[in-house]
Amino acid sequence: MTDDTDGSTGRVGRVTITTIAQEAGVSLPTVSRVVNGRADVAPQTRKRIEELLQRHGYQRPVRRQEVRANLIDLVFNDLDSPWALEIIRGVEEVAHGAGIGTVISAIRRRSTVARQWLENVRTRASDGVIFVTSDPEPRMHAELRRLRVPTVVVDSAGIPALDVPTIGATNWSGGMSATEHLLSLGHRRIGVIGGHPRLLCSRARLDGYRAALQSAGVPTDDALVVEGDFSHESGYTGASRLLDLDDPPTAIFACSDTMAFGVYEAARVRRMRVPDDLSVVGFDDIPGARWTSPPLTTVRQPLVEMGLLAARTMLRLMDGEQIESPRVELATNLILRHSTARLGH
Amino acid sequence: MTDDTDGSTGRVGRVTITTIAQEAGVSLPTVSRVVNGRADVAPQTRKRIEELLQRHGYQRPVRRQEVRANLIDLVFNDLDSPWALEIIRGVEEVAHGAGIGTVISAIRRRSTVARQWLENVRTRASDGVIFVTSDPEPRMHAELRRLRVPTVVVDSAGIPALDVPTIGATNWSGGMSATEHLLSLGHRRIGVIGGHPRLLCSRARLDGYRAALQSAGVPTDDALVVEGDFSHESGYTGASRLLDLDDPPTAIFACSDTMAFGVYEAARVRRMRVPDDLSVVGFDDIPGARWTSPPLTTVRQPLVEMGLLAARTMLRLMDGEQIESPRVELATNLILRHSTARLGH
Repeated sequence: MTDDTDGSTGRVGRVTITTIAQEAGVSLPTVSRVVNGRADVAPQTRKRIEELLQRHGYQRPVRRQEVRANLIDLVFNDLDSPWALEIIRGVEEVAHGAGIGTVISAIRRRSTVARQWLENVRTRASDGVIFVTSDPEPRMHAELRRLRVPTVVVDSAGIPALDVPTIGATNWSGGMSATEHLLSLGHRRIGVIGGHPRLLCSRARLDGYRAALQSAGVPTDDALVVEGDFSHESGYTGASRLLDLDDPPTAIFACSDTMAFGVYEAARVRRMRVPDDLSVVGFDDIPGARWTSPPLTTVRQPLVEMGLLAARTMLRLMDGEQIESPRVELATNLILRHSTARLGH
Repeated sequence: MTDDTDGSTGRVGRVTITTIAQEAGVSLPTVSRVVNGRADVAPQTRKRIEELLQRHGYQRPVRRQEVRANLIDLVFNDLDSPWALEIIRGVEEVAHGAGIGTVISAIRRRSTVARQWLENVRTRASDGVIFVTSDPEPRMHAELRRLRVPTVVVDSAGIPALDVPTIGATNWSGGMSATEHLLSLGHRRIGVIGGHPRLLCSRARLDGYRAALQSAGVPTDDALVVEGDFSHESGYTGASRLLDLDDPPTAIFACSDTMAFGVYEAARVRRMRVPDDLSVVGFDDIPGARWTSPPLTTVRQPLVEMGLLAARTMLRLMDGEQIESPRVELATNLILRHSTARLGH
């Protein structure tokens, strides 16, 4: 039971922790606890020791196989989207098979929660962290790097500067295939409701829509492009705006399934039937897409597979392997159900 | 770093582990690893040691505060229901605040997976296990008890023999309030689609339906009661059967939201409108109930709150507290949206 101290009392780098303990005026085990990222050290003591470690250029020992916690952290901003569960399923399946526990956290876009979470990760000595569309703040990322905790990002919102393996989906191709499908049914006035414009995935889906229209020689009309935020409400509001135009669209591509459900409701309150009076295509293929009425034609993101791949990548990083391809996009594909119809059928 | 051996080398009960080690012909640390539930012992060695420990009536040391892993396991049969995410949100919120990680597992109703999971729980030395509608098999429960891991069950399928704290919802009252609502709108032919009859929660909802009819003096008609299994498909099939009766119901109470979505689809393919031609009430209030079109009137199970309470109960068990009330049911309540209408409006 001496793994931790074995690693940290040895002379690593230019200074030993004995020197640090003397300079800080604390005991050796206290320095050892700070070096090993344990929680039971008073904040001001920790701060003083961290400063000394940094000033002396102390090199933390590389984590050893024997002290693995057999835990990975899977971190969401919020646990309020149905697709979170799909990602969890994929990660859990691989991790479970490898005897590793999947610890779920929601950091709720609040820095106090994120700090607490980081403290928890330190205490439980997680072997790795998978972030899901929650761009790790640069500071948090730096801290994880300092703790030598490998990191993988699923469906990155798009901060390509971060040097971590990222698993995404082919959003641009997905946007293109949704639009091509509607064009093939004879639709020419095709509305689109985009996601957060600050997210790369939203911009890629929208660009795919524009590319498909351009390939088909159909001019784009800015009045048919509205901005959403992936929420049901924004789908409802966006579709209401589109359907109340003087020359409304005959089809709408909603850049998430949840927004597509909002489009259904905007049609229903106008006593329009889907697909008879309005064709609708979504994006994601969450389980609710099968269950909605009529079942939703949508662009499938392989969410479970993205979780599987993220976990497999993490296992490789934990084994010290190099990841040859830092950015992987899994293919989306169009799932035909019953929410689209030929124009004027 | 000697917590584990401190506890297990002392003379506890009638025999020391030194004696066991001698009899088994293995080293002291090996016996210590078995006593402390660690994974790195060969299966046949573990078996021999376990047998000796049992034969000598060895008493495992009570877990000490200092060796807490700060982890709880949250276990589902499958991660395929949207309400799983709601429970996760509740548990994670409380656990996170207490500096404890929530480890998610799906045991997939397969005993090999369950055994592997138990091995993982042992390795990571989880402080407690919360089961969600997955009746722990008696053998698994016995094993957790042997490992002194406290257990809480959420929404028990109903094996009241197990002596563990259980968090449920008032299913009977919920079934009653759904039916009373439809009666108050003038409906008299009210169909019902039940869940798995082997689950107590299903039987309670159905009994609530019958009690409401009886209170209103409306005779029950067995043709209006069909069995489902909480799946979308069974909701669709059940509603199809009801709507194709010679004297079909004017309203349907589906004992889960997912089944209610199947009812919507069965109505749509018959070109019936909800609620104009058919009133529908669900049960659960998963997020999709708000997003479906028309938004679903449903009996809300406080899933997030059930998760919160399960986690709080677990924290108390971890602190060695007694739980005064082993079975708690949180109140359900009817959420009025747009899927019901007055008969003949």
